[in-house]
Amino acid sequence: MSKGQTRDKIHEIIYEADTPMGKLFDVVLLILILISIIFVMLESVAGLDKWIYEWLYYGEWFITIFFTIEYILRIISIRKPSKYIFSFYGIIDLLSTLPLYLSFILAGSTYLLTVRALRLLRVFRILKIARFIGESNKLVKAIKDSTPKILVFLFSVLVMCIISGTLMYLIEGEASGFKSIPVSVYWCIVTLTTVGFGDIAPVTPLGQLLAAIIMILGYGIIAVPTGIVSAEYVNKDNHSNKGDIKITKEERDALVHINTQVCRHCNATKHQDNAKYCHKCGFILNEE
Amino acid sequence: MSKGQTRDKIHEIIYEADTPMGKLFDVVLLILILISIIFVMLESVAGLDKWIYEWLYYGEWFITIFFTIEYILRIISIRKPSKYIFSFYGIIDLLSTLPLYLSFILAGSTYLLTVRALRLLRVFRILKIARFIGESNKLVKAIKDSTPKILVFLFSVLVMCIISGTLMYLIEGEASGFKSIPVSVYWCIVTLTTVGFGDIAPVTPLGQLLAAIIMILGYGIIAVPTGIVSAEYVNKDNHSNKGDIKITKEERDALVHINTQVCRHCNATKHQDNAKYCHKCGFILNEE
Amino acid sequence: MSKGQTRDKIHEIIYEADTPMGKLFDVVLLILILISIIFVMLESVAGLDKWIYEWLYYGEWFITIFFTIEYILRIISIRKPSKYIFSFYGIIDLLSTLPLYLSFILAGSTYLLTVRALRLLRVFRILKIARFIGESNKLVKAIKDSTPKILVFLFSVLVMCIISGTLMYLIEGEASGFKSIPVSVYWCIVTLTTVGFGDIAPVTPLGQLLAAIIMILGYGIIAVPTGIVSAEYVNKDNHSNKGDIKITKEERDALVHINTQVCRHCNATKHQDNAKYCHKCGFILNEE
Amino acid sequence: MSKGQTRDKIHEIIYEADTPMGKLFDVVLLILILISIIFVMLESVAGLDKWIYEWLYYGEWFITIFFTIEYILRIISIRKPSKYIFSFYGIIDLLSTLPLYLSFILAGSTYLLTVRALRLLRVFRILKIARFIGESNKLVKAIKDSTPKILVFLFSVLVMCIISGTLMYLIEGEASGFKSIPVSVYWCIVTLTTVGFGDIAPVTPLGQLLAAIIMILGYGIIAVPTGIVSAEYVNKDNHSNKGDIKITKEERDALVHINTQVCRHCNATKHQDNAKYCHKCGFILNEE
Repeated sequence: MSKGQTRDKIHEIIYEADTPMGKLFDVVLLILILISIIFVMLESVAGLDKWIYEWLYYGEWFITIFFTIEYILRIISIRKPSKYIFSFYGIIDLLSTLPLYLSFILAGSTYLLTVRALRLLRVFRILKIARFIGESNKLVKAIKDSTPKILVFLFSVLVMCIISGTLMYLIEGEASGFKSIPVSVYWCIVTLTTVGFGDIAPVTPLGQLLAAIIMILGYGIIAVPTGIVSAEYVNKDNHSNKGDIKITKEERDALVHINTQVCRHCNATKHQDNAKYCHKCGFILNEE
Repeated sequence: MSKGQTRDKIHEIIYEADTPMGKLFDVVLLILILISIIFVMLESVAGLDKWIYEWLYYGEWFITIFFTIEYILRIISIRKPSKYIFSFYGIIDLLSTLPLYLSFILAGSTYLLTVRALRLLRVFRILKIARFIGESNKLVKAIKDSTPKILVFLFSVLVMCIISGTLMYLIEGEASGFKSIPVSVYWCIVTLTTVGFGDIAPVTPLGQLLAAIIMILGYGIIAVPTGIVSAEYVNKDNHSNKGDIKITKEERDALVHINTQVCRHCNATKHQDNAKYCHKCGFILNEE
Repeated sequence: MSKGQTRDKIHEIIYEADTPMGKLFDVVLLILILISIIFVMLESVAGLDKWIYEWLYYGEWFITIFFTIEYILRIISIRKPSKYIFSFYGIIDLLSTLPLYLSFILAGSTYLLTVRALRLLRVFRILKIARFIGESNKLVKAIKDSTPKILVFLFSVLVMCIISGTLMYLIEGEASGFKSIPVSVYWCIVTLTTVGFGDIAPVTPLGQLLAAIIMILGYGIIAVPTGIVSAEYVNKDNHSNKGDIKITKEERDALVHINTQVCRHCNATKHQDNAKYCHKCGFILNEE
Repeated sequence: MSKGQTRDKIHEIIYEADTPMGKLFDVVLLILILISIIFVMLESVAGLDKWIYEWLYYGEWFITIFFTIEYILRIISIRKPSKYIFSFYGIIDLLSTLPLYLSFILAGSTYLLTVRALRLLRVFRILKIARFIGESNKLVKAIKDSTPKILVFLFSVLVMCIISGTLMYLIEGEASGFKSIPVSVYWCIVTLTTVGFGDIAPVTPLGQLLAAIIMILGYGIIAVPTGIVSAEYVNKDNHSNKGDIKITKEERDALVHINTQVCRHCNATKHQDNAKYCHKCGFILNEE
């Protein structure tokens, strides 16, 4: 096996999830991610036996070194490393190893390792994504389309919170815990979003009246973002239902299946089952 | 009356709800379930008079013995007992009697008797289920269809909580109650779901800012699961409306009604009013 | 003016809202209801000046006597008093006067006067109801149609709360405030509905884990009732849109307007503008 | 450049956002508004260094003077000043400068400067509003159409809170914090809206039972406003989809584009790109 072939083999194992080896690798990876997150969490718990902390420490290092090797392999096995390094997962993968090395210089930076939780999103790759893609796309599109409206809504809510927060500060004063306007605005957000911690609560009749109004408002206007997403989503569905399907036999025969293969050169995905060349960069896909 | 006939009579009474005796049995059963749940709950309340605990104890035993006899009758009256024993209700029924017997060996296990609450779901059998079935099926299907999407949503929420929980731990520290990362993650879930106990609350300005962002996020993204279920359900309705009904007179005459009869052999349900043989196992249904 | 005419005049004033006198009467009535509710509320506030309580006491009596006279007039001005006495508003009106008289016998019963708040619902009569009727009917119908499904949902939620409440009692124990199973079930309801008082909160890791699961569940399943109502309402609208309107000119000319007139004999409403006889009992409507 | 031309130039800069100068002015304005809100908030925070308060004080004055000049320019550059002064933004702009001047007379009035937050809503002018207009209009219309129904809903909720608040007062009494009926009603609103501060919480079994009912109710009926807005919005979309678009080529040619130009005389907006005269008052638009 030539050097190039070894590289391609590695690429297949760590990037794809169709071959048994590729799937096994992804499952092992996910389990290690899960364990490492639990380790980082446990490390912050005080009062455990000393030997536990030691084990956590060694386990942490073992996993980090594994991740480091995996990161390096990912870079060398791909022909255009920049495609991976600056991708979403590339950055997450780097941030998942760095903090432990930084901990020699910066105490406490180990906790930043929980950014590894983001790596868990890889799980969607292993699951039969294909089944979700059709539906998710509609959902993602509905959420994307309603985002600007929801942002306008949240922005208006924020303006409302600033003004009513100031009013609460003037009404309640520092005695009831409304120490400053920022704290009052914080309280307003806590109240309007119906979270209601109760660490700060109005005690004067006027303050309680205003609080009641804010709460009823918060309870009433939650209907707005909900209505937006519902409507967008219903309409997305209606549209796709209208131009429904009605494909001819010839058209159906023309449909192809895609798999989880990843181009060794440019990391492009969604290749057809019988594809020989990457549909993006034209690089050859499988030498077998 | 032969032995077989007695068994069939018992089967009719305890499994079906169409005959007056069957209905009476089910109503008595439900009342006993309700009483027993109240008994178990009261037993855990401290500070009552001593004679109350004694009465609760005897009442508990009386009901448990009744349930035990019912359980045994259910097994012997059916011709294929395994069909019942390993069904959802069969397991619940067993779990509803065992804990009290176990209490001789394991103290405190009586409290597990509240699993009886699950038996209350039988109530849907007595109510005219038929009326609900059409509608529920659509609803259940809508919920089932939206479950994977909602799980993806909740999984993303959890990843978000792990990361922001770690941030809160770093920002607030142990002084404000954020004792460890797991506790901080717990706090994040409490906040994002807009529950907001207030047993832990941020006190630093930066912590309150992050908390405000988490809350507004939680307030905004609750629209996502709601939108999903709404859209699924609306579309389910639209579809069923399209292929609307328009049956001919002959077709309508061909429609049959089902009743609450249960096969003595295999416990299959949904038999037609004039059915003579079980549509699942072919066993004869009614000898009268 | 004969005695019958006086009675009819009174009937017109207190039951209808179309004539200037009728409208004035209703407005005065609503203001008095509002004042009396504020009086009852203020009476319960401790620490006010003594003369305020005295004024509240006299004001209370003045309004109650007014309401008593109104109640008697309502009975004598209608030809079939039982129609009013056993109607929803008839019972509310009685309950709005009785407690003060009862206060001679039963201390504290004056507070029950807040049941008067229900009389405020009369406000919908004065507002141009006609404008709302078309829309409300659809909304009311949507809510009514979704009620059984929502009840099934809430019943399932309750069963879930009983079981997880028991688990929390076993996990957390009395030390963290989970004093008994009923209290734990209460805590579960507080948590699942995302209210989260925080007077009781889990402190053990296992308890916090279960609490987190309950919260995420509560956050996720709120989508169910919301989805039900949305879907019912959307479909109600779609149906009414389909059989859209398209009336011919002749049909439009045949449409009539209804007013707030109320039959003096049977209290029937929704009479046409030029109606002479009650459409329900045939009694003559207006002698003028 | 004549005096009239200068005035028109100023009008273009401060009212419009199409020209580079106009856009720059709006961006600077928004940044100053943001800074001033942060200043007012910080001023209320106790415990900062003395020199910070001094800087905040001077910064406050600098911005207020800027706003005052802007306000005067807005009045003199428009030909019909009353159009601006009594508009929504005109009043907000006045309220954004007055409090600081009033602070010489009325201590504490500086905090009212947070009303400036409302000025932030101007941001929607700079953003490509055009893109939002079509969608927002539908959304705004949906919200407007559902407002009366939501008000009826909230009014009913309030009546419910008054009655159950009184019941809680009678059940719990002053010992558990339910000091008076108004406080109990406040608590009911806190609970029904699922905010749940926990500063007041029921302790008696009966009180906790009633509280549980209120919570489950609040959790269930939040579906009503949500359902209303969703349905209104879905239907708005359906209607606009039906009369879908299908314009002929000639019709499309007849369509015009509007810009952010504002009439110097009457402040009317939505002028066509090639308009010469204001479509509202006939005043000439651009002299260039």
